Amino acid sequence: MHILVTGAAGMIGRKLTARLVADGALNGQAIEKLTLIDVVAPQSFEKFSGKVDAAAADIADAAAVRAVVAGRPEVIFHLAGVVSGEAEVDFEKGMRVNLDGSRALFEAIRAMGDGYRPRLVFTSSIAVFGAPFPPAIGDDFHLTPLTSYGTQKAATELLLADYTRRGFLAGVGIRLPSIVVRPGRPNKAASGFFSSIIREPLNGEEAVLPVADSVLHWHASPRAAVGFLVHAAGLDADKLGPRVNLTMPGVCCTVAEQIAALRRIAGDKVASRIRREPDPLVARIVAGWPSRFDPARALGLGFRTEASFDDIIRVHIADELGGKIAA
Amino acid sequence: MHILVTGAAGMIGRKLTARLVADGALNGQAIEKLTLIDVVAPQSFEKFSGKVDAAAADIADAAAVRAVVAGRPEVIFHLAGVVSGEAEVDFEKGMRVNLDGSRALFEAIRAMGDGYRPRLVFTSSIAVFGAPFPPAIGDDFHLTPLTSYGTQKAATELLLADYTRRGFLAGVGIRLPSIVVRPGRPNKAASGFFSSIIREPLNGEEAVLPVADSVLHWHASPRAAVGFLVHAAGLDADKLGPRVNLTMPGVCCTVAEQIAALRRIAGDKVASRIRREPDPLVARIVAGWPSRFDPARALGLGFRTEASFDDIIRVHIADELGGKIAA
Repeated sequence: MHILVTGAAGMIGRKLTARLVADGALNGQAIEKLTLIDVVAPQSFEKFSGKVDAAAADIADAAAVRAVVAGRPEVIFHLAGVVSGEAEVDFEKGMRVNLDGSRALFEAIRAMGDGYRPRLVFTSSIAVFGAPFPPAIGDDFHLTPLTSYGTQKAATELLLADYTRRGFLAGVGIRLPSIVVRPGRPNKAASGFFSSIIREPLNGEEAVLPVADSVLHWHASPRAAVGFLVHAAGLDADKLGPRVNLTMPGVCCTVAEQIAALRRIAGDKVASRIRREPDPLVARIVAGWPSRFDPARALGLGFRTEASFDDIIRVHIADELGGKIAA
Repeated sequence: MHILVTGAAGMIGRKLTARLVADGALNGQAIEKLTLIDVVAPQSFEKFSGKVDAAAADIADAAAVRAVVAGRPEVIFHLAGVVSGEAEVDFEKGMRVNLDGSRALFEAIRAMGDGYRPRLVFTSSIAVFGAPFPPAIGDDFHLTPLTSYGTQKAATELLLADYTRRGFLAGVGIRLPSIVVRPGRPNKAASGFFSSIIREPLNGEEAVLPVADSVLHWHASPRAAVGFLVHAAGLDADKLGPRVNLTMPGVCCTVAEQIAALRRIAGDKVASRIRREPDPLVARIVAGWPSRFDPARALGLGFRTEASFDDIIRVHIADELGGKIAA
């Protein structure tokens, strides 16, 4: 099997590639080749016995995308994109990469015109939803994004469904929850604190909490996100039907519950490293985000995530900290 | 006031232009100039005292669209588009005209970059919805179109909302019901029978009914459609809020109720000109269409349509037949 990953140098892209390399197979078939593209050339994997093509390529460069698709990957994980904050600051770049880039990929597939019909797993986001919300967002709630990023993801979902309906490709859109605990250093994303209030205390550092303890949100671990993608690649198209875009399951909890989980797992001393410093701007941004879903379709199709925020913390400790917590 | 109408040579475009000319004003301001574009040059109106620029222009031709927008129309009615059947047969043309054309218009407005922010009324369609449906489709039901036309309209709705949110324009998207009774000759649209079973009998001709009498659908007259557009042009943006795309009110009735209304208004002899000739293909297409909505937001914002199918027939007799029925 030949697999293409776009956005392969990103956090999820690297973890997905590592999982594919570790598994050596997808959908029960041995992986013979991985094509990894991103705006910077993704790292290669020494442990992988198959062929790896890792290259720098702009997803919105139609010729570059056609060249990659000409290799006829059976499964495409389309993760490439500009993140939320950047798409809001640079409207043209967000439209070019997130919308035109996705369309360039879909068009390159359609242009093959010889029956080629890959499974295409697209990472969308719960940013396709915009407030006001019902207490739990069901699978038939409308998409009214309040960011350009969410708009670009929602428009791509529509195209993915139509290209699938017409038989040009076999699409699945995966609306990811907020991914915590993100590894690495703190970043400037408004959602960054959901990760940093866990990650920094576990590293023996102080973290700042800019919102109230009562803030409710929808989380899944990086490991769960990779699990969604791998599961989506193997979905039965008949069971999926024409509504190919799915809200993923997540763990719904408040910031207070996040902190309580940290205390249970790592103790009072670690949990005491969170300093409350309210930021009205962050609080206002977060208030517009969805917090709870009823992802019945995804659950029915076998998508699974962590059972609790405790499990999300345990995944972080296992995958990023070698199982160890700083005292 | 300067008004631009795209798709001005189409059925709704011509009726809208005639209404604007007859009113001489919009939103309480005298109309000084009308710019009318379509793929063929729209007709001009002798009765209009203001300036009329009527020109052939391809909505997907960015330079042509920029030239039109440079005239700074305060209100833009964006009706241009390829119809449902054509967008399904010719995928590339539908994408180019319906999606890229709309985006070219929005981009031409954004490119002005000097505070220019016209009211833009976009005609969307209930084709943005796809089966299965709840008994009545509420304002927060998701868009899962089952045609490329519906996909292109839904994606344009998303862009319209984001361009509005960012302050590039002041958009309103109007999801039109099926428009009946369409004037003119029968066409090959699958929905054509909804009009022809009224129009042909009133003209003394036989009409063919290809579906069961129990088929339920969502109708409004051409006059009501024009009324929606004019009302949308005057909407208060604060009352509208960020969810700028609205399902319009309509008359929900079965084919049997349509025929009963025709019999009440025009008599048994006219109603007897309908011949039942089931067409399984048309029946299957129609089964995928939405039939009933709960358009609470549009009603709350003052959009109004006919009270009954009887009224829809009366509008047709008044507007198209000079008030007379063939015996």
